[in-house]
Amino acid sequence: MTDSTTGQAPSRQDRRGPSRRTLLSLAGLGAVGVGASVTGAIASDSPSPATPVVDVVPFDGRHQAGIATAVQANLHFASFDVVATDRADVVSLLKDWTLAAREMTAGIRVGGPGPPPGGNLAPPTDTGEARGLSASRLTLTIGFGPGLFDDRFGLRTQRPAALVDLPKFPGDTLDPARCGGDIAIQACADDPQVAVHAIRNLSRIAAGRAAVRWAQLGFGKASATDTSSPTPRNLFGFKDGTANVQGHNAKALAKHVWAARGDDAATASWMTGGSYLVSRRIRMTVETWDRGSLFDQEQIVGRTKAVGAPLGQKHEHDPIHPDRLPVDSHVRLAHPSQFVGVKMLRRGFNFVDGAARFGHLDAGLFFLAYQRDPRTAFVPVQLALSRADAMMEYLRHTGSGVWACPPGVRADGYWGDTLFTQA
Amino acid sequence: MTDSTTGQAPSRQDRRGPSRRTLLSLAGLGAVGVGASVTGAIASDSPSPATPVVDVVPFDGRHQAGIATAVQANLHFASFDVVATDRADVVSLLKDWTLAAREMTAGIRVGGPGPPPGGNLAPPTDTGEARGLSASRLTLTIGFGPGLFDDRFGLRTQRPAALVDLPKFPGDTLDPARCGGDIAIQACADDPQVAVHAIRNLSRIAAGRAAVRWAQLGFGKASATDTSSPTPRNLFGFKDGTANVQGHNAKALAKHVWAARGDDAATASWMTGGSYLVSRRIRMTVETWDRGSLFDQEQIVGRTKAVGAPLGQKHEHDPIHPDRLPVDSHVRLAHPSQFVGVKMLRRGFNFVDGAARFGHLDAGLFFLAYQRDPRTAFVPVQLALSRADAMMEYLRHTGSGVWACPPGVRADGYWGDTLFTQA
Repeated sequence: MTDSTTGQAPSRQDRRGPSRRTLLSLAGLGAVGVGASVTGAIASDSPSPATPVVDVVPFDGRHQAGIATAVQANLHFASFDVVATDRADVVSLLKDWTLAAREMTAGIRVGGPGPPPGGNLAPPTDTGEARGLSASRLTLTIGFGPGLFDDRFGLRTQRPAALVDLPKFPGDTLDPARCGGDIAIQACADDPQVAVHAIRNLSRIAAGRAAVRWAQLGFGKASATDTSSPTPRNLFGFKDGTANVQGHNAKALAKHVWAARGDDAATASWMTGGSYLVSRRIRMTVETWDRGSLFDQEQIVGRTKAVGAPLGQKHEHDPIHPDRLPVDSHVRLAHPSQFVGVKMLRRGFNFVDGAARFGHLDAGLFFLAYQRDPRTAFVPVQLALSRADAMMEYLRHTGSGVWACPPGVRADGYWGDTLFTQA
Repeated sequence: MTDSTTGQAPSRQDRRGPSRRTLLSLAGLGAVGVGASVTGAIASDSPSPATPVVDVVPFDGRHQAGIATAVQANLHFASFDVVATDRADVVSLLKDWTLAAREMTAGIRVGGPGPPPGGNLAPPTDTGEARGLSASRLTLTIGFGPGLFDDRFGLRTQRPAALVDLPKFPGDTLDPARCGGDIAIQACADDPQVAVHAIRNLSRIAAGRAAVRWAQLGFGKASATDTSSPTPRNLFGFKDGTANVQGHNAKALAKHVWAARGDDAATASWMTGGSYLVSRRIRMTVETWDRGSLFDQEQIVGRTKAVGAPLGQKHEHDPIHPDRLPVDSHVRLAHPSQFVGVKMLRRGFNFVDGAARFGHLDAGLFFLAYQRDPRTAFVPVQLALSRADAMMEYLRHTGSGVWACPPGVRADGYWGDTLFTQA
């Protein structure tokens, strides 16, 4: 563990006084003499040179982590309403979030490994439940919803044309309490406690400036983005994501996922290197599905259940011939050939949120799809699926969001700085 | 993978016709000629002699698995209302559940590895989402609630005296939709998809006989039951379970956890070797907690946050001297010395169920405690805590259940057979 953040994002340090490096030095000299507990904290948490950092995904880069990153095992996704009314407060929030995100993704506690400013008479800077856990490949990915581009913060002219208000799709049964929001943060990690800890601490840092509107836990990485591991299964029991955009395929990412210079030079040049995310909470009526025959299930999906082969083929990765699949099958209707070759990078997660009515489970897929432009990707695909997909009988879209995810952060930058420094 | 279940629990086979072993033979001969998909299933799922079974917890035994078993990473807990009205239907349900539980805990699909009876024109016997995953140390543990011992099934005289209706504790804010039920099943596994799959399939098997009343997912094994791994942390950021009953300590288990012959010979000799489980969904107001100083947090808990040492001590496992801890601290009030030495085996899990009101997370601890007799364990401890524990300011008990968990199952037995064959 190292203090990687010194000098990077000044806003929080400005308000808090001495830097954490300073405090660490003081603590080492015994000058912060606030009792056995703090001393114990330092003793037990001091970095061990023998501990290798094995599971850290770098936070900085040209693109945000958590998009092309190989999908982790667990998700905690939160949508925030901005309650601040001043643009400066939004910027300070984004700076504070970036600082904490850098720490947490590096496996460092929020506020660094030392005692909190003010000793143990102040609240701990980190809530503590991830202490002792590794970074667990934590990634934190931010997106801005249409609401952020209203008149409050002077961002109206920067709203990307690709950040469309999604149309109402046939069969939508959206719950407003699970829709929209000004800012979304996707936390993915191989340990659920690490993902939960991250969202909780970011929520805490936001106090007075943004509040959680809705949140969703997920597991089971319903769509793989690398073919090196077996394709995971969704709660219909089928492999999901076989033909997904692969995170290591730079060419496919450039074509389908990353917003490029010139895509929207008029209003959103700040999005160059970013991506658009559509989130959908899709309740799956698994009890009804489970009563269908294997034959019917496979006809609906267009793949075999055991192997995941396109119907009529033998192996999972055999080529798909859409015209040989049932006309209302999911794989045929969603195939890129139906949409001038457009693809999305899906990295959804399965969810179970306890019991619903009638003794059923409130279970399904939290669908997450990154794309270069929802107008040519999610919107036409979902319009086609919601009109004709035989699977729709077993799906209820209960939540929805669309997000402009800015490009990656430079070492001296903060989340969304291309938007706020441009505007 | 082997067909370990032939001949063990006849009820489901009786209703379904030929045994799975017969069907497997037929399939191998090509006699179940239902198309490429089923053939593919057999080909891809046939047991590989080279695949070692590394993470199976045996289902059978003197005690149910999932109690003394080292705590797994994930929980799916479900409470069922019995909707059957005949005792025979309850027995057949328990037999069917036992068969499926044996299969799933062994890493075998429900119905075995072959095609479903009826080929692919029948619903698959297993929902499929755990296919390709290992057993993941899955344990399934059943408990009977007070409701099962009413007049419906002739069990009134077998209700254990220890299966008390819990009193209303000061500060309880119970949601009836998260309380009670006739039967509970605790699924624990190191993969959340495996735990979810198990409850889903048991729920499906129960159709028409029992329905899910409520269900809870959990993670983070908030209480360890073995000291070989670091003590996990709850969502207050503190280590939890340091002084827990250890799952490998047969003497402590016999004293504190397992119901013994003679404990309740009048009504519950069928419980010998079983245990009583109290489940409590404890919402933690983490946002409020996080505003407290480190000093206050440690005074409330009675341990240091970083190390988990009793206040005034240095190391986590240093002895606790309750009289040296704050009078309203959690550790002092819950210490066995306050309750004539009684202890419980706790194996709770952290949970986050999305967002609550005011931008807060609906997060907390799903408390699970196994004990020999709740009348001398959970009830007096919780009465004391709910009256005096300073931590209660940050806790809301929103769900509750008390369950008589029968002893383990013999190879030719079924869950609860000691109850139903005795009565």
